[in-house]
Amino acid sequence: MRATTIHAPFDVRLSEVPDPVIEQPTDAVVRIVAGCICGSDLWSYRGENAITPGSRIGHELVGIVEQTGSDVRTVRPGDFVVVPFVASDGTCPNCRAGYQSVCQNLVGIGGRTNDGGQGEYARIPYADGTLVATPEVPDDALVPSLLTLSDVMGTGWHAARAAGVRAGHTVVVVGDGAVGLCGVLAAARMGAERVVALSRHQPRQKIAREFGATHVIAERGEAAEAAVLELTDGVGADAVLECVGTDQSFATAFAVARAGATVGFVGIPHGVEVPIRTMFQRNVGLAGGVAPVRAYLPELMTDVLAGAINPGLVFDEVRPLSEVAEGYRSMHERRAIKTLLRPGG
Amino acid sequence: MRATTIHAPFDVRLSEVPDPVIEQPTDAVVRIVAGCICGSDLWSYRGENAITPGSRIGHELVGIVEQTGSDVRTVRPGDFVVVPFVASDGTCPNCRAGYQSVCQNLVGIGGRTNDGGQGEYARIPYADGTLVATPEVPDDALVPSLLTLSDVMGTGWHAARAAGVRAGHTVVVVGDGAVGLCGVLAAARMGAERVVALSRHQPRQKIAREFGATHVIAERGEAAEAAVLELTDGVGADAVLECVGTDQSFATAFAVARAGATVGFVGIPHGVEVPIRTMFQRNVGLAGGVAPVRAYLPELMTDVLAGAINPGLVFDEVRPLSEVAEGYRSMHERRAIKTLLRPGG
Repeated sequence: MRATTIHAPFDVRLSEVPDPVIEQPTDAVVRIVAGCICGSDLWSYRGENAITPGSRIGHELVGIVEQTGSDVRTVRPGDFVVVPFVASDGTCPNCRAGYQSVCQNLVGIGGRTNDGGQGEYARIPYADGTLVATPEVPDDALVPSLLTLSDVMGTGWHAARAAGVRAGHTVVVVGDGAVGLCGVLAAARMGAERVVALSRHQPRQKIAREFGATHVIAERGEAAEAAVLELTDGVGADAVLECVGTDQSFATAFAVARAGATVGFVGIPHGVEVPIRTMFQRNVGLAGGVAPVRAYLPELMTDVLAGAINPGLVFDEVRPLSEVAEGYRSMHERRAIKTLLRPGG
Repeated sequence: MRATTIHAPFDVRLSEVPDPVIEQPTDAVVRIVAGCICGSDLWSYRGENAITPGSRIGHELVGIVEQTGSDVRTVRPGDFVVVPFVASDGTCPNCRAGYQSVCQNLVGIGGRTNDGGQGEYARIPYADGTLVATPEVPDDALVPSLLTLSDVMGTGWHAARAAGVRAGHTVVVVGDGAVGLCGVLAAARMGAERVVALSRHQPRQKIAREFGATHVIAERGEAAEAAVLELTDGVGADAVLECVGTDQSFATAFAVARAGATVGFVGIPHGVEVPIRTMFQRNVGLAGGVAPVRAYLPELMTDVLAGAINPGLVFDEVRPLSEVAEGYRSMHERRAIKTLLRPGG
């Protein structure tokens, strides 16, 4: 089969690789209907994360179950499934507590030894603990929204949950990537009264508004902080979603949080120094991390199938899998917010 | 009147200072029945915090209202009151949200310009927003426990609240000072099934057990972490209370937290580097800060008056105010856990 491999910075290729087969009785093999490129894939693409040449890249996918191992009980061939960005056994104490992303037997999607999401097929370990099937094969128009449940929508949801968003809140979302935009959608869906998106890019502002942002602040840094404080009579936001992961974005997040608020963070931290004294003096908490998207999948899938949310709007570019390298370039150059890849062409 | 002043490291004195008077219509003047020395006073005493020579020290007190300003409505002369360690207006958005310790008009107790808790009298600003009176003047035997509500018990309670302690939890308390011991008491009172105190000092271990600790771990660092993990089948604690504030104590707190747990922190952070990558990977949150003891006072006062909790056990030394300098030495040399001072002698 064909799958995307990374060889060096700015060198991703569609390569011929072995067809996946059932290796463990808990495995499933999935024919990929759609995959996509993640903002976090760009860390590798740009060489900011270490690269093992020839390893698979891409960890978001939806597809049709082709084959299951003898122990698999909850999905069967023909099912349409959403695949979270990590596989989890579903039975360890962390999984049972709803933190499948910290599964004691966690297996990544993609990488040196596992199939990734940017290919034609993928072997998925721990099918019962990982996959969630739709009740029936969905209309193709729903595929983009379902695909976001593999990562970005569940991650934005996690940011909002971790930040303790509640009905009536004023919520600030730092970051206008796909995750930040999904954070806007999550906050609005949770009943926030005001959702403030920090974005200076018009196409992203537009999606933010479609997702429920009531305010868009185009300023950055101190000017953005001042704008939020003005909006909140100097008090700050009830909840803040940190969806970037840089020191600057963390600083902004803490600066706009009201006393007693929580910053929900899901951006992979790179060079972040947590302002612990400010947290102490102002009682601002920090919670979040690698999102347990598996925990949120049933609820969010119901919302997508019912048309209550349409997170698939974050995909502003669709390409056949054969153009995966162009897709990376689009996202790297910020010409695309997020690129969906269709192995079918 | 006489009040304690600090002049240089290891130089605290009982000095003659002006009698306090009502300056604002929202003030009250309190005759101090009991004050005490806080672990945080030792930061100044040891010269680890900057000292303004001649400034007042001590921020914990209970006493009898002597006089009130014309706007004061909730307390009156003759009332026995607990004084939180900071004065808060009670009306700003932060106060109304239950974060009186982040009051927009916060006034410290003690310091360069305000009366402190280690003296004979104190002018307390924002009496209505700050003071909480008992229904009647309590029996003298209850004074130590009521005094802890001024700081350490409310602070231990805040650590447990911030950490999200719930019935059935396994809770680890890092720190066996008065605040840590009160954190043990708070966790037990909130229904924790197992409360693990980290302490190597026998008198503190004894109080921890009286406060409800089900396990005491005398090891430190990695050995302590291993002991907690063994106790929890490798999973970690459901909630962790960080009651010290050093980099080592934070490291221990994060190492023993289970995935999805929160570290509740109330120790003033000194040189702490927050392990943000670990927080991210394991979904461990951090919440807490300067405790809004005023928010917890009514509930905790009810518990003390009913005999449901007896936090006054943390005072293992009682001295007349005239011996305040000896009291500091006792605590500095760890001969005393916490020293209560009686202006009456």
